[in-house]
This record gives sequence, C-alpha cells and structure tokens, in this order.
Amino acid sequence: MISMKQIATICDVSVPTVSKALGNRPSVNPQTRQRILKVAEQFNYRPNALIRGIQSGRTMTVAVACNRIDDPFGAQVMQGVLGGLHQNQFECLLFNWDQSVRDGKRILQIIGERRVDGLILLPPEQIPSAEYMTELRTFHRPIVIVDQTFADQTFNFVGTDDGPGIEAIVQHLTQFGHQQIGHLYNDTVSTGQIRANALTRALAQLGLTIPQAWSRPVVGDFDDSYVQATAILSQNARPTALVCFNDHVAMGAHAAAYDLGLSVPRDLSITGFADLPEAHTMRPALTTVNQNVPQVGQRAVELLVEKIEQGEQGSQESQTIRLPVELVVRDSTAPAPGSLLENTSGFLKVDEPLSTL
Amino acid sequence: MISMKQIATICDVSVPTVSKALGNRPSVNPQTRQRILKVAEQFNYRPNALIRGIQSGRTMTVAVACNRIDDPFGAQVMQGVLGGLHQNQFECLLFNWDQSVRDGKRILQIIGERRVDGLILLPPEQIPSAEYMTELRTFHRPIVIVDQTFADQTFNFVGTDDGPGIEAIVQHLTQFGHQQIGHLYNDTVSTGQIRANALTRALAQLGLTIPQAWSRPVVGDFDDSYVQATAILSQNARPTALVCFNDHVAMGAHAAAYDLGLSVPRDLSITGFADLPEAHTMRPALTTVNQNVPQVGQRAVELLVEKIEQGEQGSQESQTIRLPVELVVRDSTAPAPGSLLENTSGFLKVDEPLSTL
Repeated sequence: MISMKQIATICDVSVPTVSKALGNRPSVNPQTRQRILKVAEQFNYRPNALIRGIQSGRTMTVAVACNRIDDPFGAQVMQGVLGGLHQNQFECLLFNWDQSVRDGKRILQIIGERRVDGLILLPPEQIPSAEYMTELRTFHRPIVIVDQTFADQTFNFVGTDDGPGIEAIVQHLTQFGHQQIGHLYNDTVSTGQIRANALTRALAQLGLTIPQAWSRPVVGDFDDSYVQATAILSQNARPTALVCFNDHVAMGAHAAAYDLGLSVPRDLSITGFADLPEAHTMRPALTTVNQNVPQVGQRAVELLVEKIEQGEQGSQESQTIRLPVELVVRDSTAPAPGSLLENTSGFLKVDEPLSTL
Repeated sequence: MISMKQIATICDVSVPTVSKALGNRPSVNPQTRQRILKVAEQFNYRPNALIRGIQSGRTMTVAVACNRIDDPFGAQVMQGVLGGLHQNQFECLLFNWDQSVRDGKRILQIIGERRVDGLILLPPEQIPSAEYMTELRTFHRPIVIVDQTFADQTFNFVGTDDGPGIEAIVQHLTQFGHQQIGHLYNDTVSTGQIRANALTRALAQLGLTIPQAWSRPVVGDFDDSYVQATAILSQNARPTALVCFNDHVAMGAHAAAYDLGLSVPRDLSITGFADLPEAHTMRPALTTVNQNVPQVGQRAVELLVEKIEQGEQGSQESQTIRLPVELVVRDSTAPAPGSLLENTSGFLKVDEPLSTL
C-alpha cells in the first residue's frame, strides 16, 4: 500500500498537491492531477479513513452494542443490522453491552473516543440503570434502541407490534377449543410486559383467566424456562396450552413436556414468539409469532442513517417504529384434548406416526 | 464533550500546551498541567482515538470477518472473540465476509483504510478463491483464520482436533452394537474432509464400511440435511445410526426421522459435532462432540494479540493451534435395534413415556 508521500516522490510534486489531487480539490494542474491519480491507482493507494474522519467529522462507522452475540434473537437482529450497514456503506464497531454496563461507562467512552457517527443498542441482558441511560444522552450523535424500551426513554426506537401477535395466538388457541391456558411470562422487559397485558386482556374479552398456579415468571433462558414449565406441568391439573414469552422459553417448555412424557401437541399445545430458525427446525415445529427479526435490525439502521444524514438540521424528536407481526401456525398446537374439535379429521397435525409405533 | 481547543481557551494556554499536558509530555509547567487536567476531567474530555491511532500506528481495533452472524456456530465463535478482545482492550470492527467476497476486495480495502491492528477470519459461507487469499497476504498485519483451512494456506490458524472427535463417536456407536452406519458429510470444507477421512479410517480398523446408499453429501444447512437424511432413511434397508457432519446437520436428520415416524434413538441413533446450545435443548438431546466453540474464538484472539505485540520482531512463521475435543453422550444414541445390548436394563435413555401413550 503506497502512501501520499511516496506518490509525491514518484510524481515529483509536494504532498499537499497529492492530497488536493486525490481529494478532488481545485488549484491542481489537470495534467499533474491525472499523473497523480494514475500512480495512486497503479500502486493501490488507499485513503486513510482515520485522517478522513478527522477532516470530515464523519467516520462512516456505527457502534452497535449487543447482548451476548450468541443469543439467537440478538444474532438475528445483528444479521439485519449488518446487512443494513453494508447497504449504506457504514462499518460496524461491535461492543458487548452487558460487559460495558458491568464496566461502568465504557461504551460511551469508546464511542466518544472513536467518533462513531451513531449508536444502535440491541436488547441487553441486564437492564441498564436510569443513570446509565441518562449518561447516554450526553452522546451527541443519533441513537436507535432496538426491541426493548426502558423507563422514561425518549430515544429513537424500532421494535415490533407485540400486542396483535398475542391476540392472534389467543384467537388461534381458543378456536382450537383451549380454555385452560398457562403462561410463562417475563415481566422484567418491556416486550414481556406488553405481551402479558395483551394476553390478560384478550382472554378477559372471552371471559377467560389464567389461574395463578399456571402463571410463572421466567427470565427467558432455556434452563429457567424448563424448570418453570416443569413446575406447571407436574401439577395434577394441567393446562392444555402454554403461551410462552418467546421461542426460547417455548423450547424450554417443549423439553419439559417431553421429559415428563407429555406429547406435544396431543396433550399440550405450546406457542412461542419471535420465529427464530429453531422454531422451524425443532420437532414438533413451533407455532409462533413471526417478528421478522432481521428486518427490525435493518429498519433500525435505516432510521439511524436518516438521523445521521439530517444531522442537526433534522427533527430532534425521537421516533418510534413498530413493525407488524404475523402468526405462523406449525405443529406444536392442536385442538385441546377432549374438545369437540379434537377428532376432526385432517385438522390434526400431530405426531401421528410416532403414536402408532 | 469538550475539545482541546476549548480547554486551551478556558485555561488561557495554547492548544499544543494542552496536547502536551494531556499526553503527559515534558516542558509543561506543573501548575499549568494540573489546571489543564482538572478542566479536562471536569468537562469530560475524551482523547480522539483517530488522532491517537495516527500518532501511535495502533488503533487497538481488530477487524473480524464473519459468516452470517446468525449462524449458531459462527455466533458461538464470535462470543469467544468478543470476550477475548474485551479482555485485551481491543475493539471489534465487524464485517460480513461473504458479502465482501461477493463485492470483490472490500475487506482489504476497509481494513487498509481503517488501519486495524489485525484481522480474524471466521469460516465463510462461500470458500474464498485462491486469488482472494493471496490478496489477503498483502495486508501487512497479523491474520488468524478460525476453524476452516484453505488450500495452500499459510496463515495463523486456530481450530479443533477433528479426528479424535470422530474416533470417539465410532467407539461409542460400535460399543452400542451399531454396524450399519450412515453418513451425512460435507466435503466442501476442511473440517468436513478431516472428519470424513477419520470416519472411514476408524470404521475400516473395525472391518466396517459405509454402503454408498447411506453416504450423502450435505452443504451444512438444515433444509438440505433434512432432504438428504430423508433420502437415506426412506430406503427399505436403513442404517441404525447416522453420523452427521455437525450439529446443524444432525438437527436436519432428527427432523427427517421424526417426520418419517422413526423414533430417535430407538430406531435410529444420531450424532452431531460442535455441541451448540441446541444440542442441549433439543429432544432427544443430541450426542455430539464438544468443540468448545467459544474457546476457539478466544484462543484466536490470544494468538492474534501475541502476534500484534511481537510486531515485526516476532517470528513470521504462521502457527497452527488445534484445541482438544470431547464426546458428550446424551439421548440421541442408544443400542442398535436387534443388538444384544438393546434390552440391557438401565442402559436405554429413550423416550420411554412417549412410546407407552
């Protein structure tokens, strides 16, 4: 890789002349400019983005604070974020948000130091404190928060329309004759609160409630979900369907049912939320709500780029975008045991072959 | 965030004096230095990493070229990479390698422009051409390649010891009486070639071979694995065990068996390779080889940092590190149907409850 100084030596001109020629600024003799550009191309000159960043005030880099990158939901968001950044020719400086929350203010320090053009915050594992979020406000570049909102937040936000997703699940389950419904909820995060409220409301409209014994909090990981689902399903009176906070929780519930010798969906219907790849690959495949997760990431980038391009001229009001969701019916839901629907032929998508062994 | 110029104005000194004081360089009056440091702290001054990068030749940033970030294997590697970079106080500039391969030389252009201190290459989806890899050699900073090697490569490499993993699987299956073994292999990647050769060799030592009808190539994704497994398992004569290239392929095989009405592990044992989180969460849980994937990523960072710190003083010879693996026996393997072992009580960890429904 050749430097500007080397180009200057080869072309027998000064470094400022090379800099002007490469920067397409005036006051360079056209023939000299041609000569300089040719040498630059021939020897594979690459502009120094660090210097360019200082000159333009733009680094074409966006900082992305993520949760564990191996969390399947976060990874799906990231796939969309990376695609969006690539399309907009931004690069991605990636941080582990949780590590940074533990370390204090490190993110802000680093994004301040590196002069990134904006910041995208994926859902963290540990909810950041109000002080932490207030501190983030001192970062005078656009910020977009993805999926989870935090108390009193006034940041730009891209997430999904959780309520209608839950309503679709309730409609689906009750059409299948389910009235005894259990719930694994996560009320520590905003999406969990919205979904739990939507479930209570939608059931109430049908005159249904969830008994306390069938309603258990989960933090969202597999092992915890497995334990809580086991607690519900080991009772003498079991629900016929379990509504789970998300796909991951549903996987825990599925494993618990399997290990208790219950057949899904014959004995128990299970629903998720997200539509991660595993919902399609697990058996029985999971009935869930498709959040179009990568598109959430992509949309977050688009909003951020819009804000970056508007700069201080743009509206300083923060924007909230919620993408629509869609129910995806697969094989983990079926008519409630004992319901009139149960024996309707062609209606069941259960593990028929297994049962005839 | 205050600038050096603003500090200079407040303290009534020149900008170079502020710069010297903050950089802890001599020839600044100690009282003036104190005053400058106090103002810098008070107004939350942050050094500009771009300028520091130009001055020091180090940016404390490592470029990481990844496959799809939502690929569970890649995400596990990334988790280790991010942890390692965090420990070593490096930041991560993240690229999508496949997009860059499609776009031509973009990675090299960007890492050249940004003056990153090193490069980590995760396994790509599309095998890069020999020209592409040769081109990478013109990047005069350390490079570490993870998991997959490429023809004629002489880069630093961190991966796992694939052969012994396959030998452990063969030993496990044959101890369970399996002699009719099928194989879903991926010979487009180096790990797949090593594992396939190890399987053939280990079986040959026991006088066993895999009939051609039970040996099928897969590219590694779920849908393709599902199709290939279905092709093997739909034959009149079926294998009693399927050795799969990796966990993802094993999930495809599991779904195929399930949809054909076969019970795993009663009718068919299945093995994976990697030990992704799904191996633990799926039912039956997957017998597989633990590659300790995050540790591979972590080790790659350690090797890279070593090379960065040695600089041009260090050995220019590339290093190859292969981490040991371990067989993890779960519930997807059991004695072969019809083998003497099959009815040994307490030996079976099968889905007993399901079968009695």
